[in-house]
Amino acid sequence: MAKLRIVPLGGLGEIGKNMMVYEYGDDILIVDAGIMFPENDMLGVDYIIPDIQYLKDKTHKVKGIVITHGHEDHIGAIRHILEEINAPIYATPLTQGLIEVKLARDGNLDIAQLITINAGDTIQVGVFTVEFAHVSHSIPDCVALGITTPEGLIVHTGDYKFDHTPVDNWPTDFAKLAEWSARGVLALLGDSTNADKPGWTPSERLIDDAFDKVFRTAPARILVASFASLISRMQQVGEAAARHGRKISFVGTSMRDNAKMAMRLGYLVLDENMVIPLEEAVKMNPKEVVLMGTGTQGEPSSIVGRLSVGTNRQFDLKPDDTIVLSSHPIPGNEEMVSRTINRLIQRGATVIYDPIMPVHVSGHAAQEEMKLMLHLIKPKYLVPVHGELRHLRQHGNMGEQLGIPKENIAVVENGRVIEFEKGKMKIGERVPGGYVFVDGTRVGSISSAVVREREELSRDGVVFVNLMVSHKDRRLMEEPEIITRGFVHSEDGSGSELMSRARQHISDRVATANGNLRQELESSLRSYLHQQTRRRPLVFVVVNEV
Amino acid sequence: MAKLRIVPLGGLGEIGKNMMVYEYGDDILIVDAGIMFPENDMLGVDYIIPDIQYLKDKTHKVKGIVITHGHEDHIGAIRHILEEINAPIYATPLTQGLIEVKLARDGNLDIAQLITINAGDTIQVGVFTVEFAHVSHSIPDCVALGITTPEGLIVHTGDYKFDHTPVDNWPTDFAKLAEWSARGVLALLGDSTNADKPGWTPSERLIDDAFDKVFRTAPARILVASFASLISRMQQVGEAAARHGRKISFVGTSMRDNAKMAMRLGYLVLDENMVIPLEEAVKMNPKEVVLMGTGTQGEPSSIVGRLSVGTNRQFDLKPDDTIVLSSHPIPGNEEMVSRTINRLIQRGATVIYDPIMPVHVSGHAAQEEMKLMLHLIKPKYLVPVHGELRHLRQHGNMGEQLGIPKENIAVVENGRVIEFEKGKMKIGERVPGGYVFVDGTRVGSISSAVVREREELSRDGVVFVNLMVSHKDRRLMEEPEIITRGFVHSEDGSGSELMSRARQHISDRVATANGNLRQELESSLRSYLHQQTRRRPLVFVVVNEV
Repeated sequence: MAKLRIVPLGGLGEIGKNMMVYEYGDDILIVDAGIMFPENDMLGVDYIIPDIQYLKDKTHKVKGIVITHGHEDHIGAIRHILEEINAPIYATPLTQGLIEVKLARDGNLDIAQLITINAGDTIQVGVFTVEFAHVSHSIPDCVALGITTPEGLIVHTGDYKFDHTPVDNWPTDFAKLAEWSARGVLALLGDSTNADKPGWTPSERLIDDAFDKVFRTAPARILVASFASLISRMQQVGEAAARHGRKISFVGTSMRDNAKMAMRLGYLVLDENMVIPLEEAVKMNPKEVVLMGTGTQGEPSSIVGRLSVGTNRQFDLKPDDTIVLSSHPIPGNEEMVSRTINRLIQRGATVIYDPIMPVHVSGHAAQEEMKLMLHLIKPKYLVPVHGELRHLRQHGNMGEQLGIPKENIAVVENGRVIEFEKGKMKIGERVPGGYVFVDGTRVGSISSAVVREREELSRDGVVFVNLMVSHKDRRLMEEPEIITRGFVHSEDGSGSELMSRARQHISDRVATANGNLRQELESSLRSYLHQQTRRRPLVFVVVNEV
Repeated sequence: MAKLRIVPLGGLGEIGKNMMVYEYGDDILIVDAGIMFPENDMLGVDYIIPDIQYLKDKTHKVKGIVITHGHEDHIGAIRHILEEINAPIYATPLTQGLIEVKLARDGNLDIAQLITINAGDTIQVGVFTVEFAHVSHSIPDCVALGITTPEGLIVHTGDYKFDHTPVDNWPTDFAKLAEWSARGVLALLGDSTNADKPGWTPSERLIDDAFDKVFRTAPARILVASFASLISRMQQVGEAAARHGRKISFVGTSMRDNAKMAMRLGYLVLDENMVIPLEEAVKMNPKEVVLMGTGTQGEPSSIVGRLSVGTNRQFDLKPDDTIVLSSHPIPGNEEMVSRTINRLIQRGATVIYDPIMPVHVSGHAAQEEMKLMLHLIKPKYLVPVHGELRHLRQHGNMGEQLGIPKENIAVVENGRVIEFEKGKMKIGERVPGGYVFVDGTRVGSISSAVVREREELSRDGVVFVNLMVSHKDRRLMEEPEIITRGFVHSEDGSGSELMSRARQHISDRVATANGNLRQELESSLRSYLHQQTRRRPLVFVVVNEV
């Protein structure tokens, strides 16, 4: 007898966020395929994708991939997944548009089977019947899923908030959620991102007032920074521009491509002559223009990142520019964002960011909204997803407060199987897998072992010693050569002295060594350097016998 | 004619926080000598101290060092400064106690000239008359300074908030501040830490309610984590323990030493039999004890850090332990703190932190308090200090809103001299200096160049190639040896294949090279590896000619 198995894939970090697998007998439904952002000690890693090892010998079972919305952490890994699994991808028009823009840039749009669905639709993916309910979030055209499985109805919220006045005037579909509830919901897989935030998340409309104040008072040019996929923010900036007699210019390829696509599909509604190319914008009266680009996370390659250090090619910062950072730092980026703000100020700009003014609100439900979702759906089981373990636990606590028995709540990590059989939930085994690091263009060529080595290198640096030794009598043929990086500055005073002493130390040891010369020298030099500096660089000695 | 020169020392980061120099003719007064915490990309740096290059040839002019309060970022660099400048150090009793505990541990207490002062006192330091006004903060016995200089009266707030119900029942001395104001204040150097936080910072007393709730509901042992110098938090935890029939045990050397000292001096008032040693605490009924230790920043060496990974020696985490993180993450530590919370939850503990419950409040004035300070002091000039550039700018904006002319507000970075002459302020030159990194025991032996090298190493790793080449005909005498770290995993599939191809590439190049072999090989291998992987490791080739 088959069971329903639900498997969140990915390493630690945000759980059940980037990819979720629903499996029943020979049918697999994948929900979302997104990237994660590396933590600060994942050195030199560009981004992370979920490890799909678990699906390796089951790719033929995958009947479809359903995408809840068009943010990077839900669509960013599609190009990598496509290399292994080429199942139909179901998405709403805007989400599909964003996927197409991405795949076109990476050159694998042609192999993707993209199928448009709309909120209110019902599709069949193998044994699963999937219904779509519109939810509001910080991007339009998001859906929650009602997945009818042989075990019962599962509600998968995706990212959501209960915004009564969203930018696209299309609030969360309470009626559809209530209808599912009336049918009886086996389990709720609910967004936990803001589980430690009390109250309600404010409406996106709150931002309009802040924008009005900025547009009213800015003495010259305005640059609003946001994510390239934040279509509703583009709409708000465009509307504010129209209200205050400015034209808008989208800066950067991804921002421009997404804006064009969203205008074509009708998700971004701006008067055609409002939108002008950058070349024109930089020549206009600064009071009559607003630029919109990327860089709210302080990414060095973004427009704002480049402006903050003076390396933007098409235009430079002017002293009376006003920069609006219309987003919050992604956890772990706080320091980089602060530094970027400080640099912009140092270069003369006025910088507006939350909490200076409410120019951004979260796209995720806060505690009271999560409780509303729980009461609306009335699930038998609760599986908190989307968030770190602490958010999941807090979501679980709220479930308990609202009367769900503790044993009906599954707070699990990525890779842990949740099974449903005869209407009962069981926490199953842990499947292999975790993170796949992407660095450069190669996927998976750097393992966590390589990242650990980078961490070692970064802690105290590295010392290489090159020796020529006579084979006959183990005599040094040349002065030892030492190359060091990240340990001491070997060209100045104390560093170069230390290096001379280290060379002497090696020469002495070569004379007295009697076993494996390389090993003896490495271990002896390691101790010597630690004793001299209290630091432990990596030490490598090569012995060339002549 | 002499001028008053005020110089904030340190690199970028928090400005005017860790050390401030007041100079007039042949007299120098130093205020505070604290450490900074390294940012995430300052790899392998333990902490940072201000660069005192500027004072190098002026040490004889230093007539005294005044310390405003006993936090690390105000006292942590004293031991290093003492090696260069041995002037009298003036501090209130608790601050002095904290300095003594630190210096005793580092073995240089005997050379320090510590002089006790109290709020209300007046001292003469060279040409400067320094008066002390009590201010509330998150540690008792803090003082603001009224510094009478030949140019006029300067008010230096230090860290402060206007807490009407502080734990030690000793609020900020409004009367003294008002008295200074009545005399006419030339310039205010005011704490800007929370300049972007609207409203008022809540009173420390708010925490008592949260503690009561935790103590009432915790099913077993409670561990409250905080900074070792947060004496008032020790008092609050001790009082909560007494109210709820628990005994308290301070865990860890610094926490225990500070508690002992504070009890001796009367700043921590707890019934003697309330405080028990750890050995006893771990044997007691878990419901009758609360432990207090360090680790709110997720530091791996702290009690909480060790408990989160299961490496604490004296006691381990139990599943129904409640861990209270009674502090906020220091900017840049957010990720480490989240990870620690997740690990504690993973190991079964309940973790309480703000915003789950208000178990910590800021020790710094928020916007409305800063405005109150401005109106109370009515300075002619405003020099925002303590904070990143963005906080200083925001403090400056508030000053403008309150009527201080823009040209009377100096938002400057560390190292910039502010001069007062004939009652007029001028922004002067920039003095050399910046950060001094401390790694291991050695001060300054790692420069920012070394830290940059670590960053390079950590980005894509390092590749070393060892060659034996015949001197005569440049023929390879041995297969090239390659050592790599942090680049590819050279022992498994794709990594070891890449290394074979790289060895072949080198062999080919040796045969055809005609210039400087080392340089040619390094540059050619660099391009080859980049073309193969899109990554740019550091590449070093040593050529041993035989």
